[in-house]
Amino acid sequence: MPHTEPTRLPELMSTDRAQLDALFASTVVGHVGFVDDGLPVVLPTIVVCWGDRLVMHGSTGSRWMRRVASGVPVSVSVAAVDGVLVARSAFESALLYRSAVLFGAFALVEAEERLAALDVLTERLLPGRVAEVRRPTSRELAATQLLAMPIREWSLRIFDSWPEDPPEDVAGPAWAGQVRFGTPPITVLDAPDLRVGIPAPTSATGIDGVR
Amino acid sequence: MPHTEPTRLPELMSTDRAQLDALFASTVVGHVGFVDDGLPVVLPTIVVCWGDRLVMHGSTGSRWMRRVASGVPVSVSVAAVDGVLVARSAFESALLYRSAVLFGAFALVEAEERLAALDVLTERLLPGRVAEVRRPTSRELAATQLLAMPIREWSLRIFDSWPEDPPEDVAGPAWAGQVRFGTPPITVLDAPDLRVGIPAPTSATGIDGVR
Repeated sequence: MPHTEPTRLPELMSTDRAQLDALFASTVVGHVGFVDDGLPVVLPTIVVCWGDRLVMHGSTGSRWMRRVASGVPVSVSVAAVDGVLVARSAFESALLYRSAVLFGAFALVEAEERLAALDVLTERLLPGRVAEVRRPTSRELAATQLLAMPIREWSLRIFDSWPEDPPEDVAGPAWAGQVRFGTPPITVLDAPDLRVGIPAPTSATGIDGVR
Repeated sequence: MPHTEPTRLPELMSTDRAQLDALFASTVVGHVGFVDDGLPVVLPTIVVCWGDRLVMHGSTGSRWMRRVASGVPVSVSVAAVDGVLVARSAFESALLYRSAVLFGAFALVEAEERLAALDVLTERLLPGRVAEVRRPTSRELAATQLLAMPIREWSLRIFDSWPEDPPEDVAGPAWAGQVRFGTPPITVLDAPDLRVGIPAPTSATGIDGVR
């Protein structure tokens, strides 16, 4: 049975790539699982959609990322919490969420694509930032692992529902509804060593979808 | 080498249990990894600290949770994004985050503790909710798997820093600082079938630390 075949609540499953992209537009953290000496290891890192690939990066000193770069099978879990479904019983209450699990293997990004991949990562966090800063140096590039995985085998679940309480609970005294979360407010702080007269750019003040 | 021994940036590591608790107070989602047929699988679910245990729950119909309940080795990854460190180069920029990885194995919660474990989960999402709703029925309890894992082997990383740009970048035109995320605003919506005269309770309007 393929990993992406659901055994429960198949009605929550989506195969809509646009909805997968929307999830990746809401959050940048992926939890990357692999097998190490027969044991599971899951580590969080920034993951970004890059066309039909998932891209991530790290220091060349990162042992776990070197292992993942060797092409071992991975599972990547991504989730965004959109709120809480408050039903009239604890049992029917639930998290409102979107989540995806991807399966596959990463490989090192080819030399000629490394700069582009880095820019994709930077722009995802800070849209417009690439034009505001100097280019990466060859020393910085040499110190960076860049890994990509085809987005091929994935499963997406979206839970967004009103309470489905039985009639006897609806007739009772308890409140029911949804609590939905908006975009977190941001506070922009100048670095202590910032030179005077440099205002915060829109890449920073316009951050969105990072959590 | 134990899983919790860092190979990189050991200065980010914390062994402070209070800081682990603070992370679990910020987010409810854990990404649970296990090995299935030699392959890694990572799935997100609600995880909550319960004293020295991590507790989670699901439907008895959940195949993956039954497998985890059998005591296979797991790795649980938890992360909270606190903002973005905006340095004067892409290379020095980074996410401000707190993350934990736990290792161990879950077991079913003993019969006499199941109701207490359910209440812990409910109260974590909606503080005060247990007093507002009826008790779980025996049918509901029978349909629920409750799993706990001792919080014993874990590693915690906290990255919260100002930019550390080299002097030539500090002298340049680029802005630098932090963008920090606050608590998301919430919108409270009545259920379409809510009876009139039932106001939203503080358990819903006071939600905090759920993401």
